[in-house]
Amino acid sequence: MQNFRFICPTDFIFGKDAENAVGEEIKKYGKKVLLHYGGGHIKKNGLYDRVMENLKKHKIEVIELGGVKANPDIGLVREGVEICKKENIDCILAVGGGSVIDSAKAIGIGVYYDGDVWDFFTKETPVKKMLPLGVVLTIPATGSEASNTTVVTNSENGHLKRALSHDCLRPDFAVMNPELTYTLPPYQTAAGGVDIMSHVFERYFTLEPNCDLTDRLCEATLKTMIKQLPKVLKHPENYEARAEVMWTGTIAHNGILGVGRSEDWGSHMLGHELSAFYDMTHGATLAIIIPHWMEYVYQTDIQRFVKYAVDVWGIENDIFHPEETALKGIQKTKEFFRSLGMPVSFEDAGIDGEKIEEMAENCTKNGAVGGFVKLEKEDCIKIYEAALK
Amino acid sequence: MQNFRFICPTDFIFGKDAENAVGEEIKKYGKKVLLHYGGGHIKKNGLYDRVMENLKKHKIEVIELGGVKANPDIGLVREGVEICKKENIDCILAVGGGSVIDSAKAIGIGVYYDGDVWDFFTKETPVKKMLPLGVVLTIPATGSEASNTTVVTNSENGHLKRALSHDCLRPDFAVMNPELTYTLPPYQTAAGGVDIMSHVFERYFTLEPNCDLTDRLCEATLKTMIKQLPKVLKHPENYEARAEVMWTGTIAHNGILGVGRSEDWGSHMLGHELSAFYDMTHGATLAIIIPHWMEYVYQTDIQRFVKYAVDVWGIENDIFHPEETALKGIQKTKEFFRSLGMPVSFEDAGIDGEKIEEMAENCTKNGAVGGFVKLEKEDCIKIYEAALK
Repeated sequence: MQNFRFICPTDFIFGKDAENAVGEEIKKYGKKVLLHYGGGHIKKNGLYDRVMENLKKHKIEVIELGGVKANPDIGLVREGVEICKKENIDCILAVGGGSVIDSAKAIGIGVYYDGDVWDFFTKETPVKKMLPLGVVLTIPATGSEASNTTVVTNSENGHLKRALSHDCLRPDFAVMNPELTYTLPPYQTAAGGVDIMSHVFERYFTLEPNCDLTDRLCEATLKTMIKQLPKVLKHPENYEARAEVMWTGTIAHNGILGVGRSEDWGSHMLGHELSAFYDMTHGATLAIIIPHWMEYVYQTDIQRFVKYAVDVWGIENDIFHPEETALKGIQKTKEFFRSLGMPVSFEDAGIDGEKIEEMAENCTKNGAVGGFVKLEKEDCIKIYEAALK
Repeated sequence: MQNFRFICPTDFIFGKDAENAVGEEIKKYGKKVLLHYGGGHIKKNGLYDRVMENLKKHKIEVIELGGVKANPDIGLVREGVEICKKENIDCILAVGGGSVIDSAKAIGIGVYYDGDVWDFFTKETPVKKMLPLGVVLTIPATGSEASNTTVVTNSENGHLKRALSHDCLRPDFAVMNPELTYTLPPYQTAAGGVDIMSHVFERYFTLEPNCDLTDRLCEATLKTMIKQLPKVLKHPENYEARAEVMWTGTIAHNGILGVGRSEDWGSHMLGHELSAFYDMTHGATLAIIIPHWMEYVYQTDIQRFVKYAVDVWGIENDIFHPEETALKGIQKTKEFFRSLGMPVSFEDAGIDGEKIEEMAENCTKNGAVGGFVKLEKEDCIKIYEAALK
């Protein structure tokens, strides 16, 4: 086990009607809040009204900034920073999914800086602190409600998508009501589910040989998703299944599954390029990449992939034929993603291979990606090509 | 899944030489620290010197209070409170196991109160805040390095042992170096291990039917202990096994395994009486009680005990004979504790049954104990009696 440091101070308020806690929580940080959200969904389903009413009840002044889109843009973040400075905002409340939360995190750090907030993402300026941030989560997927990361896109500079990590980026509190996810469309539910599983895969496939507890916690998390995701897709209003998926999304990415071990994140890098070039949903890009990444790298540690097949998928351990066992686990992964309605190839997603060279170039322009296996440009090309059909 | 609230803001600094971080951490809270510890063990093994040197290097003024004993007493706590008030202490550093940490927690809340600190334990005064608290953990067992609980004994009033829980009782940081546990005697290592497992049992055996993820996380934690504890006893300086046990101790009791479900804690109550009447180590009392508690209650939910047997112990699920499968899991538990060198009966521990009536009386004097099954005095007597041989 490698030395590690872990802190996740987020206060989780989980369950039915949890959103009624927002006013009480915000009051701990001040009287003036920036309410940050995406499109009209929260207005249509009544969540916006309930949150506003609760904030009003607690005499909290609300300044609004809606309009966050998938792959949140630095333009709106800059706007948010200006508002917070001008209005002396005490706290940000992000109501939405990962994009809204990530945008709010970027605003929260921009407030404490006189230059352009994008400087944090180019690493020209180190992050030090963030405005208090509360979250009302509506989409279980990115884990941003507890993670120390934000991912923001700069559309002015050729769609640069940049991630930033620092423990001050963890929200102060996260309100999580599984009922709020009942109306998520199946595709978004499934894509969120794959994203959650990917956060575990990126940690599970490690070169660290000694990580017994975290291996088992990873397996517990994956098995929960394998059991609960199909239930949620079949019965969107199954509270228990929605609750399992929502909480699993948090555990999968608050960092607890990565302590003491090296992580990978190559699949995320490969997937980000698919998002950038074809405007695809993050989770769908991962469903395409992950099984092919697995097929490309499994020989680096066949026994780890045997363990994955046996301890996650319950595949019989064919002890004399470890490679066959390992490949069965990978095949199961692909079949599972497909059963969720996710694409597992370029063809499934209706995209061609014309951009492969360019994507691989972009993916590796700062050097090889991944931790389990270091992927150079040529490796990326091979994985993309394997994913064509 | 029941509604829940969960927060664990402790900053974990884990690994070799982790204790060298104390000065840097304490500085965040002030310049004057109360160094709280037990007997001479940390002086003999050099830990005391290393911590003192590090604090000196960071120009932190140190006031010392040693002498904490197992089942920490309110007398020393009162002394600590006086010192902190008189010396304007900024932060407490607890170097030791659960007793030292619990004593430090009690001191930390007493500082903010003009009356007798025991009032918190009689619930006459509600807890509101605690002085910043850092921990250097030397015994993996109680989980107090991350838990929201402290247990203190009042020896003046007939050995009243009282627990207090509040989220402000979670330490601010916890330094965890597995090497510090190399010199723990086998008995203490084993008793600590049983304590860790008991924290999972108290949560695993729940009446809540829907808790898929936390069930699996509980099982992951128990299986890790079953694998690693014998290794640690066989090779006390096996770093990896010591590291697994130490981190598992934290996960087992920081509360994450109890979210969304009812818990039990009946075995702890029964065990506390054995400690009080026979001055036994906490973990040893649990090794005696737990298997007999299981035998007494399993019929309340046989399928949960079947799951325990199959998913924790890997026992073949004899589907047509669930009771047999359930009982095999309980038997395995007893055998495992015995294999660790723990007593699993009064006889093993060299104690008689003369105090059973009195212990059962004390155990239930505030009403029935336990959540999975409510145990009245008569139930307690039966469990104690079953544990005689």
